[in-house]
Amino acid sequence: MSFSPLIRQLIEALRTLPGVGPKSAQRMALHLLERDRSGGLRLAEALQAAMHGVGYCNRCRSLSETEVCRLCTDPRRDDSLLCILQSPADVWAVEQAGGFNGRYFVLKGNLSPIDGLGPDEIGIPALLAQLEQREVAEVILATNPTVEGEATAHYIASLLKPRGIRVSRIAHGVPLGGELEFIDGGTLAHALAGRTLIS
Amino acid sequence: MSFSPLIRQLIEALRTLPGVGPKSAQRMALHLLERDRSGGLRLAEALQAAMHGVGYCNRCRSLSETEVCRLCTDPRRDDSLLCILQSPADVWAVEQAGGFNGRYFVLKGNLSPIDGLGPDEIGIPALLAQLEQREVAEVILATNPTVEGEATAHYIASLLKPRGIRVSRIAHGVPLGGELEFIDGGTLAHALAGRTLIS
Ligand SMILES: [Zn+2]
Ligand SMILES: [Zn+2]
Repeated sequence: MSFSPLIRQLIEALRTLPGVGPKSAQRMALHLLERDRSGGLRLAEALQAAMHGVGYCNRCRSLSETEVCRLCTDPRRDDSLLCILQSPADVWAVEQAGGFNGRYFVLKGNLSPIDGLGPDEIGIPALLAQLEQREVAEVILATNPTVEGEATAHYIASLLKPRGIRVSRIAHGVPLGGELEFIDGGTLAHALAGRTLIS
Repeated sequence: MSFSPLIRQLIEALRTLPGVGPKSAQRMALHLLERDRSGGLRLAEALQAAMHGVGYCNRCRSLSETEVCRLCTDPRRDDSLLCILQSPADVWAVEQAGGFNGRYFVLKGNLSPIDGLGPDEIGIPALLAQLEQREVAEVILATNPTVEGEATAHYIASLLKPRGIRVSRIAHGVPLGGELEFIDGGTLAHALAGRTLIS
């Protein structure tokens, strides 16, 4: 059917959200128009405020609406541990997992020469500059276990080890609660190669 | 984790959309902030325009941004057939199914004495007033096949038959207990074509 312009534009705009197809977008538009106009207006305001007001932290380079984010300024966190990730989404994931109390540094993706992404593009110079100024005892490389993520981790390790900084890589293997028969072969091979002795 | 205020408000506002849980809302917020800020701003504008600009058609009472909607003004549609539905979502569903070329009238839900919804509340007086002024040969009752929808259909049939208006009910194909807006188009088109007279 042909919707009137305002309704059509709303449905199309909702489809820019990830995971929202034409049917979901229609259902969302109807719900807001029929049952929750104030919710629709609040969403519009929240979108405008966030799109204009959220930038990047000067220190960790994750998303932040202040020059330096709360994770970087929190005095209770451990300055001697620096976890290197490849996106703000990964910072959120690690924070929600809990258990890590150090600082973060977010790369702009991974090294990918094919895509023109070299050390400068992903933020290596800024990382090195920060390591000059700060007392970091250990850098934890938490880039994804993909070809690019591994290459990036190894590249960073090769730069940091001559500077006397301890460099570690997050463990990869079978996820907790996972069943071996459903794990992909690459992960399983990695888990076997990275086995640890039970003492 | 504790998000900064603008990001937290955005995630909360996205959760007002139907079918969006906390994880989806986070993913949507990240997607817009990291990859599609202009899409986020377009969505904000579309929301504001639609929430303020979309009202209800004076004639069929479906959603419309003009006093009388395009379905009511389209000269190619058949004035002698009037399909009665219980929500704008159902108009969209019937239009998308195709095969119906008459006019619509949208009730504000169904009769439900327990919820205080009587004939006045769902718009029966307006329906009768329109039938006084228009040449309608047949009224098709397409309320949902639920207890309330059936009761509403029978109530309207009891009012219209003494006025010499042919009254039919959609049938065959819409599963009992189902909701029209979630039925596939083919079933819905079949149900309309196979409507039976209420004797
Ligand atoms: Zn920061
Ligand atoms: Zn209309």
